[in-house]
Amino acid sequence: MHQEIKFEIIGRDADSRARAGVLHTARGVVETPVFMPVGTAGTVKAISQEQLERLGAQIILANTYHLYLRPGHEVVRQMGGLHRFMSWPRAVLTDSGGYQVMSLKGLGRVTEDGVSFRSHLDGSAHFLSPELAVDIQNALGSDIMMTLDECVEYPASHETLHRAVKLTGRWARRSKEHWARYQESGIRNQELGEEERAAPHSTVDSGPLIPNSQSLIPALFGIVQGGTDKGLRRESAEEIIEVGFDGYAIGGLSVGEPKSETYEVTDYTAALLPADRPRYLMGVGTPEDLVECVARGIDMFDCVMPTRNARNGTAFTSQGKLVVKNAAYAKDESPLDPACECSVCRRYTRAYLRHLFLAHEMLGAMLTTSHNLYFYLDTLRKIRQAILSGGFQEYRSRIRAGP
Amino acid sequence: MHQEIKFEIIGRDADSRARAGVLHTARGVVETPVFMPVGTAGTVKAISQEQLERLGAQIILANTYHLYLRPGHEVVRQMGGLHRFMSWPRAVLTDSGGYQVMSLKGLGRVTEDGVSFRSHLDGSAHFLSPELAVDIQNALGSDIMMTLDECVEYPASHETLHRAVKLTGRWARRSKEHWARYQESGIRNQELGEEERAAPHSTVDSGPLIPNSQSLIPALFGIVQGGTDKGLRRESAEEIIEVGFDGYAIGGLSVGEPKSETYEVTDYTAALLPADRPRYLMGVGTPEDLVECVARGIDMFDCVMPTRNARNGTAFTSQGKLVVKNAAYAKDESPLDPACECSVCRRYTRAYLRHLFLAHEMLGAMLTTSHNLYFYLDTLRKIRQAILSGGFQEYRSRIRAGP
Repeated sequence: MHQEIKFEIIGRDADSRARAGVLHTARGVVETPVFMPVGTAGTVKAISQEQLERLGAQIILANTYHLYLRPGHEVVRQMGGLHRFMSWPRAVLTDSGGYQVMSLKGLGRVTEDGVSFRSHLDGSAHFLSPELAVDIQNALGSDIMMTLDECVEYPASHETLHRAVKLTGRWARRSKEHWARYQESGIRNQELGEEERAAPHSTVDSGPLIPNSQSLIPALFGIVQGGTDKGLRRESAEEIIEVGFDGYAIGGLSVGEPKSETYEVTDYTAALLPADRPRYLMGVGTPEDLVECVARGIDMFDCVMPTRNARNGTAFTSQGKLVVKNAAYAKDESPLDPACECSVCRRYTRAYLRHLFLAHEMLGAMLTTSHNLYFYLDTLRKIRQAILSGGFQEYRSRIRAGP
Repeated sequence: MHQEIKFEIIGRDADSRARAGVLHTARGVVETPVFMPVGTAGTVKAISQEQLERLGAQIILANTYHLYLRPGHEVVRQMGGLHRFMSWPRAVLTDSGGYQVMSLKGLGRVTEDGVSFRSHLDGSAHFLSPELAVDIQNALGSDIMMTLDECVEYPASHETLHRAVKLTGRWARRSKEHWARYQESGIRNQELGEEERAAPHSTVDSGPLIPNSQSLIPALFGIVQGGTDKGLRRESAEEIIEVGFDGYAIGGLSVGEPKSETYEVTDYTAALLPADRPRYLMGVGTPEDLVECVARGIDMFDCVMPTRNARNGTAFTSQGKLVVKNAAYAKDESPLDPACECSVCRRYTRAYLRHLFLAHEMLGAMLTTSHNLYFYLDTLRKIRQAILSGGFQEYRSRIRAGP
């Protein structure tokens, strides 16, 4: 019934759990380990889809919660799905919305059924269940859907973490069962009739608008919770694996715990997950974190850091973070990173970028976003290449040693 | 002594003063009539230099006042001039700063010597004279410098306008004389020694940073004032022509007067200006205004409209203005302009652009800016082609008839 996502492992590091793979999605191939730029509201902030393609992004993340509220998943469905709506031909992973709802604090209430919450936009009342999260992601036309989970802040009591683990487990089962009903009925992505689904809606005569891809089956990933408690991580992993998913995510990290704990829990949890399925570490992290977590067996990452920091004027470089507004760069004709080959570093100086930020000009955020995403995507490409060529430990040592 | 800018007229419309030309600047050829995107602070807002090149912009406008205050013209000079600082290889016209100082209202005071004003950024006290305006523009490495003028708001008394015309005339003479001293002394763009000027400062090993071009002589344009008073326009034009400049601008229009007056004064004033020199109408206007003012003999335009309106979510199209936020476009899969061949119209829908603006996403401003500039630049290309092929009156009638 359930067509499994195809994930091939094509190379391994001999001295760690690092591996290189190919994830076949409904919209093309994703080479792992991979970094997914965050496109919360159907746009990766301050960069265009053309530029993302040029940077080599193979998959981006979009947010169920945000798109449900605005423009609404029914609008996106009617526009032919998210790929067509935003004109992005490659893969999209949709976050389930659980993390956002949890971070709303006073605006949300968790029950067995799901989450009641008020919109951060207009205060309107909403309810999100594991089933609805699947419905929404299906309407969006996601390539990789995430189950609704309960993400808990750090620090949390054992009782709170345990309750979240059990609820996440029950929700995972409900998500899987609901998704199975879609597949049994043959309804996918759209509730439209077959003819409508086959015909592009566009009134545009020319150009590469994105066709619907309803013939392909999205993947559904489960999420392991349990905070920094290894016993709970094991309990959660066993439950989620028992339900069975196309891939497995480690949630509830990078929520305030010390970095050593992030690494340790990632190490511990990744080892519990099926070796033949992609492992996704949610919301992590710095370039160094990516290398360290690849070594612990992670295949997929997302993080707002490269894009958010860019808008604040912080660049990631081979020499570490660079706060481009600093007075030291007022007359610095170097590029953001002299070792970087991206289009921004080939053309613009630190002095100019600093001026743009001080003058509150959008181009500052645009160029730094482009550079930071290049840096992240390029880091993952280098990691992958190092794994395939047997040089991963050397690469890791170099990154660990720092600039 | 004074090397004149080369301006060739290569075609004329038989039934109007419209003409097509080629303006040879220190940084390449500008085909006229031309629209100059406004890059106030050394960046055309929400678009990169690569994109401007791709759109075919041959010349952009930058602002003396803004760059003097931030990052400071000495910083720009030390960075090798504005072209190199912002990595823009093509021509730059610099506005003199008079308009900005005038529009500061209570923050500025005009005397015979120049303008005392306080910075809108930090309240610090500054003084701008006709000579300093030349010094600054020279430090910036402008290709076309504008003389400092006194721009008067609409409506204004005859006395106020007359005073501004006379002051503008005296300042024009001082500007010309000051610029002549530069040329006599052989000092251009930089105050650095010859060796330093010849060597690029960049620490960048590769890539197309912009070389200095100190061997080329910038042009200096005079500005005609006089509001909507034809007698004063004639008086101003005669004075400015008597001083003698490489090109002539009509200032003080598009400041609140009725459009019929804009056209009439443009018509009247353009006819007074030397036929063999470029004529630049400052701060005008809509696409229709451009066609009408080309017919009246104008060769060069600048206006913030395409970029500013874009950031507010208004697109210029072959069917008129389109306010993309309108609810009518929530599910509209058409591009901004179905008749447009720009990269934005080939890829993105109105529905998506509306979503971006409602979600306050930068990509909305970025894409609409790109489209609007394409529309303006393309309109001027079509006007020029129509003049050269004898079809200008037909083109003008079509634009006049409206969508």
